[in-house]
Formats: sequence, structure tokens, C-alpha cells
Amino acid sequence: MPLDPTKYADWQIAEAAEKNMKTIYQIADELGLQKEELLPYGHYYGKVDYAKVLERLKNKPDGKYIDVTAITPTPLGEGKSTTTIGLVQGIGKRGKKVTAAIRQPSGGPTMNIKGSAAGGGLSQCIPLTPFSLGLTGDINAIMNAHNLAMVALTSRMQHEFNYTDEQLAKRNLKRLNIDPRNVEMKWIIDFCAQSLRNIIIGLGGKTDGFMMNSGFAIAVSSEVMAILAVAKDLKDFRERMGKIVVAYDKNGNPVTTEDLEVAGAMTAWMLEALNPNLMQTIEGQPVFVHAGPFANIAIGQSSIIADKVALKLADYNVTESGFAADIGFEKFWNLKCRYSGLKPNAVVIVATIRALKCHGGAPIPVPGRPIPEDYKTENVGWVEKGTENLLHCINIVKKAGIPPVVCINAFYTDTDNEIKAVKRICESAGARVAVSKHWQYGGEGALELADAVIDACNEENHFKFLYELDTPLRTRIELIAEQVYGADGVEYSPDALAKAKKIEADPEMAKLGTCMVKTHLSLSDNPNLKGVPKGWKLFVRDILTYKGAGFVVPVAGAITLMPGTASDPAYRRIDVDTETGRVKGLF
Amino acid sequence: MPLDPTKYADWQIAEAAEKNMKTIYQIADELGLQKEELLPYGHYYGKVDYAKVLERLKNKPDGKYIDVTAITPTPLGEGKSTTTIGLVQGIGKRGKKVTAAIRQPSGGPTMNIKGSAAGGGLSQCIPLTPFSLGLTGDINAIMNAHNLAMVALTSRMQHEFNYTDEQLAKRNLKRLNIDPRNVEMKWIIDFCAQSLRNIIIGLGGKTDGFMMNSGFAIAVSSEVMAILAVAKDLKDFRERMGKIVVAYDKNGNPVTTEDLEVAGAMTAWMLEALNPNLMQTIEGQPVFVHAGPFANIAIGQSSIIADKVALKLADYNVTESGFAADIGFEKFWNLKCRYSGLKPNAVVIVATIRALKCHGGAPIPVPGRPIPEDYKTENVGWVEKGTENLLHCINIVKKAGIPPVVCINAFYTDTDNEIKAVKRICESAGARVAVSKHWQYGGEGALELADAVIDACNEENHFKFLYELDTPLRTRIELIAEQVYGADGVEYSPDALAKAKKIEADPEMAKLGTCMVKTHLSLSDNPNLKGVPKGWKLFVRDILTYKGAGFVVPVAGAITLMPGTASDPAYRRIDVDTETGRVKGLF
Repeated sequence: MPLDPTKYADWQIAEAAEKNMKTIYQIADELGLQKEELLPYGHYYGKVDYAKVLERLKNKPDGKYIDVTAITPTPLGEGKSTTTIGLVQGIGKRGKKVTAAIRQPSGGPTMNIKGSAAGGGLSQCIPLTPFSLGLTGDINAIMNAHNLAMVALTSRMQHEFNYTDEQLAKRNLKRLNIDPRNVEMKWIIDFCAQSLRNIIIGLGGKTDGFMMNSGFAIAVSSEVMAILAVAKDLKDFRERMGKIVVAYDKNGNPVTTEDLEVAGAMTAWMLEALNPNLMQTIEGQPVFVHAGPFANIAIGQSSIIADKVALKLADYNVTESGFAADIGFEKFWNLKCRYSGLKPNAVVIVATIRALKCHGGAPIPVPGRPIPEDYKTENVGWVEKGTENLLHCINIVKKAGIPPVVCINAFYTDTDNEIKAVKRICESAGARVAVSKHWQYGGEGALELADAVIDACNEENHFKFLYELDTPLRTRIELIAEQVYGADGVEYSPDALAKAKKIEADPEMAKLGTCMVKTHLSLSDNPNLKGVPKGWKLFVRDILTYKGAGFVVPVAGAITLMPGTASDPAYRRIDVDTETGRVKGLF
Repeated sequence: MPLDPTKYADWQIAEAAEKNMKTIYQIADELGLQKEELLPYGHYYGKVDYAKVLERLKNKPDGKYIDVTAITPTPLGEGKSTTTIGLVQGIGKRGKKVTAAIRQPSGGPTMNIKGSAAGGGLSQCIPLTPFSLGLTGDINAIMNAHNLAMVALTSRMQHEFNYTDEQLAKRNLKRLNIDPRNVEMKWIIDFCAQSLRNIIIGLGGKTDGFMMNSGFAIAVSSEVMAILAVAKDLKDFRERMGKIVVAYDKNGNPVTTEDLEVAGAMTAWMLEALNPNLMQTIEGQPVFVHAGPFANIAIGQSSIIADKVALKLADYNVTESGFAADIGFEKFWNLKCRYSGLKPNAVVIVATIRALKCHGGAPIPVPGRPIPEDYKTENVGWVEKGTENLLHCINIVKKAGIPPVVCINAFYTDTDNEIKAVKRICESAGARVAVSKHWQYGGEGALELADAVIDACNEENHFKFLYELDTPLRTRIELIAEQVYGADGVEYSPDALAKAKKIEADPEMAKLGTCMVKTHLSLSDNPNLKGVPKGWKLFVRDILTYKGAGFVVPVAGAITLMPGTASDPAYRRIDVDTETGRVKGLF
């Protein structure tokens, strides 16, 4: 019997479930992997040799492909990961072969206030401890690969400063003339280390590097992570790794990892990381965990490789997009699916009564503080008003030609009247709606959702992109702003405008993907505007280029690449039981 | 047929050998591990659940315990790792159950100019790529655990700066009053990143950390790594992790990881790392790879846990000490063996004709440059003169009461006359001497050495420490300086003297181990003095305290905690073959 989530913490539920979990050999066997295709890491999780699987099953048709996204969330999150796992457990209860593909959590939030992202209640990915604490080391590999580029850059700058052209030539080096005021790349670390956000490096003498401004970003924001998410195979990965722009020379020309002769070694550090990780739900379905790029500057999706492998092995693969439908789903739709060539069969939009109340007028909750009392009492008016945001998200999914399924991720404090109101409004809008109690009851609680999703997957599919790659950049941005965000147009800063024109004029750059950056807390670019904001223009402040990942990144709003650790972070409550060797206090 | 090492590079030999290597399941089975005691990481290496093994075999007597050390080396190194692996292969050829226990290499040297430390020629540890590139992630775990302490420290400093005592109390925090000018700990990264040696952090506004001087050290210099090497079990490890002194408060009192409430979470990151890694020689004997602390500020040995496990499973376990007999063996003898309670049965002293020539007067070779011509022609006079250093090392080992075995690690350029001279001189001094050609011929080439070591292990053992833990600190330092280094006494800087007195007066500190820091390139504290320097005094410049590791560290000479990447580093030549997925160019 699983523990009651209204009485026990997530880590306690996980601990109890782990006593009876399947070995990874059994999971792999049930999934149809051959022995050499599973790379176990201990007995309860492992990696899958994607190249072997994709080669062996290249002629097998793919399973059904389901994406989980959400309405515009409150800052607390509305349970996309929990719903992803719950849905997989529900489809599993219906006797189908089903997998999840989720992102690996960053050590930053896990040690800070957000906690891990393993799901919650009776819908979790286990074993929880390795999932939360680095798993098979992919993020560490990214850290090493990324920081090796910074070592190569900064030591090169030192050597170019110290040596003449002749001395460099003896070492078979040509002067790159890197501009210290135009270094785009930062170092990375996988914690919320605000002290490293802005730093000066290279103090000391002539063998102590090169003095300049620098800084650290969180590891999951690395372009290497973005590349891991979008690469199709090792060859594609190696090519992308050489295109990362580290800095610019004094003439404004890009200096890449290939120029620094470090892209090969960076790839070597990443070899194992290309294989997706395999874990399980607390009800024993396989869960692929692979990549975890930030959803703001990067694609914010789990890897294409994991989805491809999962779709060959399972009848249904449920993947999750970071952030809400306007951000996460839009990038899934127009970027991930374009790169992968895969077509989704259904999209789940997760909504909570809490978020609907917030869109309807309730005070915005703050993470780490008690939830306002307004959320604990019935208020059908707020809920009805809040469905405007949900209807907008339904329409976004419909524009992609995919059937949307609304999942009301039930809290035990929701009232029947509130739920009825949402059902009525969404059904009138032509969407399937399911109330799901997977948090409290696991797969049994997700049967209504599972049935709705299975049903939607049988619907005829009219998947189409919002724009084509020959659409000019500014037209693409306008399409996204107006059709997806509901804006009345786009404005550019002079800098962004100049960059947009340059990109449009460059045949290679013009063909890169468009990866929007915008707050996920509003459909607009102002996080405080809830519901469906009207009468606003999207303001594009800057445009970044991630040549390795293959993105042009129009930036609307601020980007935080290095969050801060709060005054009461999670690590204070995490410890190890030295008798049992178990980790306590993860959440 | 293995490849000829005079014609092929180490990575090519490894690649060829890996085509026929045993699976890790077979290695574990031959070693007598039970199925659940092996934690495979893929099919060719893994971890061993040390706690299960030690519990199951607690009543089994230990095998023979052999340490490999060396004469004072040239800057090129004299092949201790190669000899360790070669000896294990040789003992294996004699039909004995034998293991190696070696250190995990750091990414810094591997990507820079020293290369990996997997041995060489036909005496290597495989598979080479994971061995060289992070293996199962222990060093990454150390990086995360260590840097989490720095996150806790620096964010705490920010919050204490921004909040009143009352605001802190609301978060259940008491002001620690950390002195920003007295922060001992640095951040770590596992590369040679000279640009991060001296940095200023915390620039920006009030949520951007705390502005102060800081820096990065290489990961293997971390106190967490030292703790991994000396911890006996999880309980011991957890206690030590809480005692790390991160900084001092404004009254000069230490602020520890426990004070920052981060020691439990740090331990959680290290849980998997406590299990030693299992690999194999190219001839199929088991190799434990575990911990790799710097030999200058830390103990410079592989882990106590690995040796304990190996000694329960094998008849012979060969372990390696970092640096020469005066440094590596002295710390093995008086620190590692004291903490572990294990008694070595024999000590191998690796010597090369090259190093003996260097001690006898030949010009000192420089890494990365061609070796001077003098080393390529016979010079018995230099060799004979150079044996003074070797005889001194033999005497150090004899003082520990253990039989020394001199291994002449043969190069194919050595001449018979040179080798005969060394044999004659060492045998007159009462040491066993063996010429070993393991680099060129593998185990077959190491039979003479294997027989000498097996023979020495049967000798009666009179192992004793140089000092006891109730010996006062300065007396210990004098004993080491005079008895081990051959100094004529010790001098202290005023600062070091004050610290020594304070430590001697503190009952807890007085009982800590003594971990000397001195160059390994000379018996003296001046790296340019070869042979056996006479008429000098050891100058102790500073004394550091590593409370978690349990060391007091008297520092004679400079410490480099962050090496620099050279202008022609190894990463330039490392790449991945995207067809085969193999890494090329590691050495």
C-alpha cells in the first residue's frame, strides 16, 4: 500500500515505494530492450544506448506522442511533472505500453526552495535520491565540457597576451585577438550561486590568466545543455559543439569552440551523456530522463533522443514542455518537433483551480510563504473568470492542429462547483476535459485523463508549424507575439532591431530556429498581468545567437541565468541517515 | 596479441585491449563479489558496495598489502602507476588473486600536459576513456559537495548583510558574523584554470552575493577529496564533513560546514562516491580506482575504503602513494596506515635509469620539451652517483620496519652496465632489486618484480610509526625533517611558530594527523637540489588546519592549488570518432 500523500512528504512516499521497485533490468526487459542496450548504473536506474536501439528498430513505426503543457502558472507551478507521471501511470493501468520522457532537475532549485522535479504525491519518478542529486552525471558532464571551453578561452587570452606571434607559431597557434569586452560565454555551476553572477577574473601576475569581467551561470542554462536536448545523434552533436560562439575578436568576428580547438575534447566529456537515462514511476512504468535546458534562453524540453527512443519502444510516450503553453508548448511545436521531425498526437494542458483563481483575481501566491486564505474557500466567480487564460491556451494548441486535452489537476481543497464550471466552459470550447486525482491516488486517479488522452490520440491529426524556416525573423516574432501571446504587435530596441536586420540578411543565420524568451508568469511580457492581457505590444529588448544549439533568441524581458539561493534553502533540511545510507529531506 | 608499445601510443594499446576486455560482471565474479555487491556502470566498470563486502567478510583475514612509492622523480614522473599495474599483472601471471588500488586522475592534468594516469604501454588500467574522463562521477560529486558549501557561505554572508537579527531569527538563523577577510575555503573546478585562481566575487547589487576576494582551486585539492580518501565508513565520513572549516568569524572562531547547516546535504551529494570503482588491467586483473587527493596539501593516496575492500577480496593488493618515498610513502606510513589500522607487508621503490642520471648530474628534463641527449647514451658514473637518492629512499622504508623492493622500471634505452651498477649497489644495501619490463611486455615483463615482492611479503614484519599521536607537533615535524628528508633541523616563520604553539596547546588539535607539504622534486624543500642534499634546514612557512580530514598541514615551500593550462594542452588533440563513438588522443 502506498502512503497517503495528504499525510506524508514526497520523499517519504518515494522511500516507501522504493522498497518494492523493479530492478532496472526488469524495467528494460519489459520495455523490450536487449541486454547490451541497457547500461545499468547500479541496480535501479541506468542509461539506454540510443544508437543501438534506433538502429535496431529503425523500421518500426512510432508510438503515440503526447506533450504535457499548462496554463499560465502561478509562481508555485501547477504540477506538469506530476501530471506527466500520473498520466503515464493511468495509461499503464489501461494495460498499454507507455513511457514518460522528462527533464533532469538542476541542483540549483533542488538545494534552494523549489525542490526536485520528480513529480509529487503518488505520481513520482523513483528512485528519488539519484534523480534529485545528479543521476548518472549528465549535468556534471555539461559542466566539465562547458567550463573546458572557458579554460581554453581564458588561457588562450593569457598566452596571446604573453607571447609574440612567433612564439605562438612555435606552438602552432594563430593569434585570435579575442576582445575581452566581448566575451559572450560565462562559466557554469549547477547551483544558485548569486555571488558568482558578476565577478572579475584573472587577477595576479602574468601566469594568472587574463583580467576581465566574467561570471557564472547555472549549468542548465548552458548552450551545451541546449545542444544535448536538440541533437539527433553523435555526429550532429559533434558538429553543433564546434559552432558555439565563445567570444568575438576585436573586429567583431565570432570566435568558436572549434577555433579554440576544444570542441573535440568537449564532446569527449559528453559521450555518456548522450544516452538517455532510464528510471521508473512509483507504479513501475519506464521513465526516460534526459536533458534539462532552461526554458527561458533555451528550448526548455527534454531531449529529442529520449523521445525518439521512447516512441520506438512504447505505444504511448508522454513528454513534458517547460513552462506554459505560450512558452513551453510553442517551443515544443515550432522548434523541437521541427528538429525531430516527430508529430505529436495530443497535448495535455494542465490547469489547477488555484491558477484559475489567480487569473480570475485572487492575490498572487509567493513561493516559500503560506498560500493566501482566498485559495482555501470556494470562489466560482474567480474560477470562471480565470478560464479565459485556459481557453487562450486551448486555442494555441488548436492552432498547431493537435487535439488539446484539459487536465484539471485536482487538489483535495477544490470544490465540485469550481470543477463543474471549468468543465462546462472548456467543453463548450470543444476541448476534452478530465479531472485527474493522480497526486492523491496515482494511476487509479488518472484513469479519466488517460482515457481522454487515448481517445484524443485516435483523432485525425492536422499538425502544422506556425511559420516556416524561410519566414523572415521579424515576421516569425510577430506571428508568435500575435497568434500565441495575443499581443497587438512587436516593438524592438534599436539594438535588437539592428541585430534582427543583420540576421535576416545572413543566409545561414536566417535559417536558424527562433527560441523566444519571455516570462512564463503571464501571456504578456509583464509577469504581473494575469488572465489574457489585452492592448499590449511585445517589446524585444535584445536578440542572442546560439549557433551551436541552432537558435536565434529574441529576448522580451529580463533573463536570469544565475538564480540566487534564498535565506531558508532546502539544503538546511537535507541529511543522510548514516545507519541506512538513505537521504532525508529531499522534496 | 597486444600492440607493441614502442610503436603505438597508450590510447591505441588501450583501444586494442578493450576489444577483448572482460565484462565487469566477470571481473566481479572472479573477485568473489556477490551480485548485489557490484553496482555496474555500463558493462565494463562499476562500483562496489563497500559496506556490504566489509560486513560479509569481516572475519576473513586480509591479503598481503603492498605499497608502491618511488625515488625522487624527475618532473616527467618515473612510472609508479605503470609499475603498480605491471606488478599486479606480474603477480597475476603467478596465479595469485591480486588487485590494484589506484587514484582517480583529475581532469586538469588529463586535459593539460601531463595526461591521464592509467599507467602506460602494456601496463594500463582500462577502459581508458571513462578512467580519464570522470569515471563514475566521484570528482564531480566532490565538486558539487564542496561548491555547495561555498554557496551556503556566500549566500549566508549576503543575507546577514541585508537582514537584521530579527529578520534572520524569523528564518531560524543566528548571525555568524563571518569575516570576509578570513575565508579559508575557495571554490573548486577540476581543470587547470589559472584565470580563476584570484578573483573578486559578489559584484553588483544587494542580491548579488557578497563582494570579496575569492578564487578557485583544482577539485582534487578539496578537503572533501581528502576526507573521501581517509574516511572509514559513512558515519565517519558524515562526521568529518561537518568539521570542515570554511571561514572564521570576526572574533577568529572557526565557522564550519555544520554551522552553515550544509554538511548533511554535502554528504548526500557524496553518497555514491563512497563506493570504490572497479576496473581492470589490460590483462584482466581487478583494479580499484578510488579518490585522488592532491599529494601536496592532502594525503595523496587512494582511499582507505578501497584498500580495505581489496584486502578482503584478494591475496595481494597493490596500492600506490602519490609522489616519492619522502612525501608519498611517509604519508602512507604515518597517516594512511594509522587511520586505516592496516599494516603493509612490502614497499616497492620505483627507480628509473633516467631519474638516477638526473640525481647523478644530468640536466633536469622539462615536461613538454624533448628529453636532453645525455639521457640517450650510457653513463654509468651518473647512474652510480644517482643511487645515493635511491639508497636514502630504501632507508626511509626500512625505518618503517617494512622490507623494500627496488624496481628498476626499465626503458628500452637502458644499458646492461647501468642496470648492473644499480643492482650491485642496492643489493649491498640489503634491498631486493628487480628489473621490470612491464611497460614493454606487461605481466610477463614483471615476473622478476612479482617474485621479489611475493618473497618480501613472506618476511617478518616490524612495522612501526615514526611518531605517536601524543608526540608534540614540532617534535613530529623535526622527526620527519631529519629522519625522512635528511635535514639538519627545522626553522619556522613567526606565523607558523605561533600556529604550532596554538595547536600544541589545544588538546583536540594536538591529536590531529600531520600532513607535510614539500616539493616532491627534491628530498629538500628546494626542488632544484637533486641527489641527497646536505646541510640544510626545513623551513616551515605556514601551518594549515584541515579539521574535517583530520590533518594539520605544515607547509614547507609554495603550494599551487590551481595549476595553469599550458599553451599546447592535450585537449587540442582529443576528439571523438563519430562513426565508432570512440575517443581519440587521450594519453
